[in-house]
Amino acid sequence: MNGRLSRRKVFGLGAAGVAAAGAGVIASRSLVEEPVAADGGTAAPFPFYGEHQAGIVTPAQDRLHFVAFDVVTDKRAELVDLLQEWTAAAARLTQGREAGALGAVGGSPEAAPDDTGEALGLPASGLTLTIGFGPSLFDRRFGLAERRPAALADLPKFPGEQLVPEISGGDLCVQACAHDPQVAVHAIRNLTRIGFGKVSVRWSQLGFGRTSSTSRAQVTPRNLMGFKDGTNNMKLEDAALLRDQLWARAEDGAGWMTGGSYLVTRKIRMIVETWDRTSLREQEEIFGRSKGEGAPVGRKNEFDPVDLAAMRPDAHVRLAHPSSHGGAHLLRRGYNYVDGSDGLGRLDAGLFFIAYQRDPRTQFVPVQMGLARADRLNEYIKHVSSGVFACPPGVRDAGDYWGRALFS
Amino acid sequence: MNGRLSRRKVFGLGAAGVAAAGAGVIASRSLVEEPVAADGGTAAPFPFYGEHQAGIVTPAQDRLHFVAFDVVTDKRAELVDLLQEWTAAAARLTQGREAGALGAVGGSPEAAPDDTGEALGLPASGLTLTIGFGPSLFDRRFGLAERRPAALADLPKFPGEQLVPEISGGDLCVQACAHDPQVAVHAIRNLTRIGFGKVSVRWSQLGFGRTSSTSRAQVTPRNLMGFKDGTNNMKLEDAALLRDQLWARAEDGAGWMTGGSYLVTRKIRMIVETWDRTSLREQEEIFGRSKGEGAPVGRKNEFDPVDLAAMRPDAHVRLAHPSSHGGAHLLRRGYNYVDGSDGLGRLDAGLFFIAYQRDPRTQFVPVQMGLARADRLNEYIKHVSSGVFACPPGVRDAGDYWGRALFS
Repeated sequence: MNGRLSRRKVFGLGAAGVAAAGAGVIASRSLVEEPVAADGGTAAPFPFYGEHQAGIVTPAQDRLHFVAFDVVTDKRAELVDLLQEWTAAAARLTQGREAGALGAVGGSPEAAPDDTGEALGLPASGLTLTIGFGPSLFDRRFGLAERRPAALADLPKFPGEQLVPEISGGDLCVQACAHDPQVAVHAIRNLTRIGFGKVSVRWSQLGFGRTSSTSRAQVTPRNLMGFKDGTNNMKLEDAALLRDQLWARAEDGAGWMTGGSYLVTRKIRMIVETWDRTSLREQEEIFGRSKGEGAPVGRKNEFDPVDLAAMRPDAHVRLAHPSSHGGAHLLRRGYNYVDGSDGLGRLDAGLFFIAYQRDPRTQFVPVQMGLARADRLNEYIKHVSSGVFACPPGVRDAGDYWGRALFS
Repeated sequence: MNGRLSRRKVFGLGAAGVAAAGAGVIASRSLVEEPVAADGGTAAPFPFYGEHQAGIVTPAQDRLHFVAFDVVTDKRAELVDLLQEWTAAAARLTQGREAGALGAVGGSPEAAPDDTGEALGLPASGLTLTIGFGPSLFDRRFGLAERRPAALADLPKFPGEQLVPEISGGDLCVQACAHDPQVAVHAIRNLTRIGFGKVSVRWSQLGFGRTSSTSRAQVTPRNLMGFKDGTNNMKLEDAALLRDQLWARAEDGAGWMTGGSYLVTRKIRMIVETWDRTSLREQEEIFGRSKGEGAPVGRKNEFDPVDLAAMRPDAHVRLAHPSSHGGAHLLRRGYNYVDGSDGLGRLDAGLFFIAYQRDPRTQFVPVQMGLARADRLNEYIKHVSSGVFACPPGVRDAGDYWGRALFS
């Protein structure tokens, strides 16, 4: 049996006494105060309150549900109310509790439950919820135009991209990461429910198999091209680099973003059928790493220093390397995706790229411009969706809320 | 750390000696002969050879990748070759090995790898691969018309269904279930790769959070309506019931199907936004169970006997109950799904229903006809895809292949 079932069993024991209280009473998820996961940690919660939002340097969980919303109210007060309600719900959900204080049964059977119920009995599962504000939120509707950070610039058009507007952009986004997809889906679904009449789902994306490590304690995973991805990612142990390249500072010009970070998302469809018919030598030269070990060209082991001169000028690793961009790093935490098939006999699969940084204008944009112009991988991939979001600092305590400094 | 990472580490240790052999050599997944999962079993393989195909009574794994193919060759010999190649690959993949004997590097760096690589380092993860033959395979192309089982009848049109032809039917299907979605996706992707030029992906579906138990050792999971689903499912411990209602017999008329089973798939979109605004009382009356415990109406505990007379005549549990259909059971092993959003501001979410049985004409069809006519759940759901497949018996040994009795 897998970890999830074990955790359910743990819960089942704890709930036994409650069930005896009779019909209409439900064992609250909050009973699971100290989940004991058979696999040693999967079930445990990450703290919600803090200087930074969780879900950025948090060791990347294995599953993603990402959603972008359009705000459909034009009343600033309603938007602020929603952010407060969402913050309260997120503080509960990330700790393995239900979305609302009254749980899935509510106070009255005549009312709709304030939790949709599909995560009952499941622990926190490492859930993090991370909010971001898109450029379109800073238009005239909410009086925020003057507060738009310079770093939240619209991304330029990159050569070759084929963006679909309906699955790009958004006024708000929420990234839900967890070890259990049911927990991530449950969180997004309940935030959506709470936002009914104020926000509308613009697009959403499920992902699995995180494609980067964000901690040196993690093994480097593989993307759907079969290569290890994110070996040299910026990681939570790189304290100086995080200060310098991840977190926004007061002197960057938008004080409300101090302690926040800028998020870029790109949905990158892979033409896996073509890739799969490419020779191993070609695949390895295009990436600049060996497929098995993940060693850079001319090296032996995955974490050996990269020898750029040994690679082809158009190798992916070489073009993306910080030394090719004045030392610009990204904190990537993307996910593989398969969205069924494309109607042309092929799987619709690829990488949902997620990167955090202090300023996309000097980090993601030059890196991606270099890749878009020269990367030989471009023959096998297609950027179909794009988003850029300002992710505010963390929520300090129960009196604080997501984006308070922006609205006050 | 979750179980998956632990398993990767196990692999990493085993591979250390191999990596030292130098570039171009890759640690084969077959090194993981005895994976040790931190969560006690997730990593282990299920046997591939046997009287029945795995993936039917196998305790339902947590993740699904289901694919339906159109056969694009009209040569019977090519189809048989493909089934033989697929069987050999499935025998390897389900044991945690690569799709082909030469692995992701192949014998020559000038050749395309015979495994796509994204599961390197991952153990078997409980992978099962289950094949089925759709009614359309028995047309004139392959000389199989005379061998079509009577039980593989086209499904009737059900009231209210809104099927999309592009995501329904198919000449062949493969159900991949595993504890790790990356492993399930890898298996389907490699079968697709092997089938290039002979088959084309018609549709595919990812799922998570199995919505039924198929063993009494499993905790009943919840569907996206928040209710426990599959409490009274036919389970692997029900030996007499399985003989009577799950496995096809020689006397059923299609000898080649002896030991096989018939599969019905239905993609059931849930209008979760409407459901989430329905009162708890209404939700419980519609289902016929309590939301928290999952107890039948008028009872106290989940596994208490159902009292049909205490329920509304149109309650879901009552309409679907075997006693309402002359004792007809199904072995269900469906999955929750979220396919992003629907372009109308809502999540595109629901249940990918999977049911195995001895004869859909006397099992799925009457049950679903009763539900389609009267179930009050119909206000909140929509059937958008449908499939029916004859799943042949198991592969006996390395000299056997999927469907051999059909083609010989």
